[in-house]
Amino acid sequence: MEAPSYYPAMSDSGPRGPSTRGIPEGDNRERMICAECGFVLYDNPKIVVGSVARWGDRVLLCRRSINPRRGFWTLPAGYLELHETTAEGARREAREEALAEIELEGVLAVYSIPRLSQVQVMYRARLVSPSIAAGPESEAVALFGWDEIPWNELAFPSVRWALNDFHASRGAADFAARGNPPGELGNY
Amino acid sequence: MEAPSYYPAMSDSGPRGPSTRGIPEGDNRERMICAECGFVLYDNPKIVVGSVARWGDRVLLCRRSINPRRGFWTLPAGYLELHETTAEGARREAREEALAEIELEGVLAVYSIPRLSQVQVMYRARLVSPSIAAGPESEAVALFGWDEIPWNELAFPSVRWALNDFHASRGAADFAARGNPPGELGNY
Repeated sequence: MEAPSYYPAMSDSGPRGPSTRGIPEGDNRERMICAECGFVLYDNPKIVVGSVARWGDRVLLCRRSINPRRGFWTLPAGYLELHETTAEGARREAREEALAEIELEGVLAVYSIPRLSQVQVMYRARLVSPSIAAGPESEAVALFGWDEIPWNELAFPSVRWALNDFHASRGAADFAARGNPPGELGNY
Repeated sequence: MEAPSYYPAMSDSGPRGPSTRGIPEGDNRERMICAECGFVLYDNPKIVVGSVARWGDRVLLCRRSINPRRGFWTLPAGYLELHETTAEGARREAREEALAEIELEGVLAVYSIPRLSQVQVMYRARLVSPSIAAGPESEAVALFGWDEIPWNELAFPSVRWALNDFHASRGAADFAARGNPPGELGNY
């Protein structure tokens, strides 16, 4: 999801919101505070949920129709919504981005991208049918064999991590969820 | 972490902040908007990180010195901070709540508490030494054998889930991360 423009535009400069740094009373870290009304913004890391979904030996990838990284291939994944479980979110993302129904087969990995304050919970999954189609955030979707994966056209480092971890998990009944590859933090 | 009181108090009724519901332009869900300045609050689910840490056959629990559930036993866990990895966060929480150094041994579970829009990433862990002590958010810390766990004095349902999952993981080299027990959503 792209962050929409602020609404409503209340002045020429737009809303300021919590734009002053300060340590609230009783806290021990700097937070963003609204100078106008004193509202304290407790900003938090964000959770991305997604899956590597297989159909036979092939895996589902989506070519992004939106920035960042428009035109590059990614996994069906996106921000978890409020009051949603991670499993529900992963299934919803497959439905939204690839019109695909998936069945989850366990946690593949928990990655952290500290630069973005992002945590990614990725599932191993199985397509319920080979029926897939591009949703609004995809310009194409496809099933790739391991030897067909467009490694040089992947959208994010964590897509590569997840594909490699999924490949390592093939056939395993009990697969221990992976973390970031050693030394990697998701930077380009 | 407890939410501290708002700061600064700008009026008798305190800051309002984003307190009006509306769908921002270009969005498709209701968000909280500040009626005064138009700031849109993109509220997100929150990530809790923690661990079940063992020393020999015993596991580390902390008795909460803060609400909610003051006086009840919990695992060392808390909100992930910005720009922190889940592994760093789990180690920090053990340090803050039990003055304990731990070594992570893999993901134990990813739980979702949709009512609270909360995701919990819990690790299997090993205490580096048996040296533990109560941090500011604990009134006591202790190592419990499986038969000694105070099941009726646990702070949250997810503490029970994690202890059970940890027990199931003992001795396993490759342990598939668990989710919520079937049908459980973390409500009391």
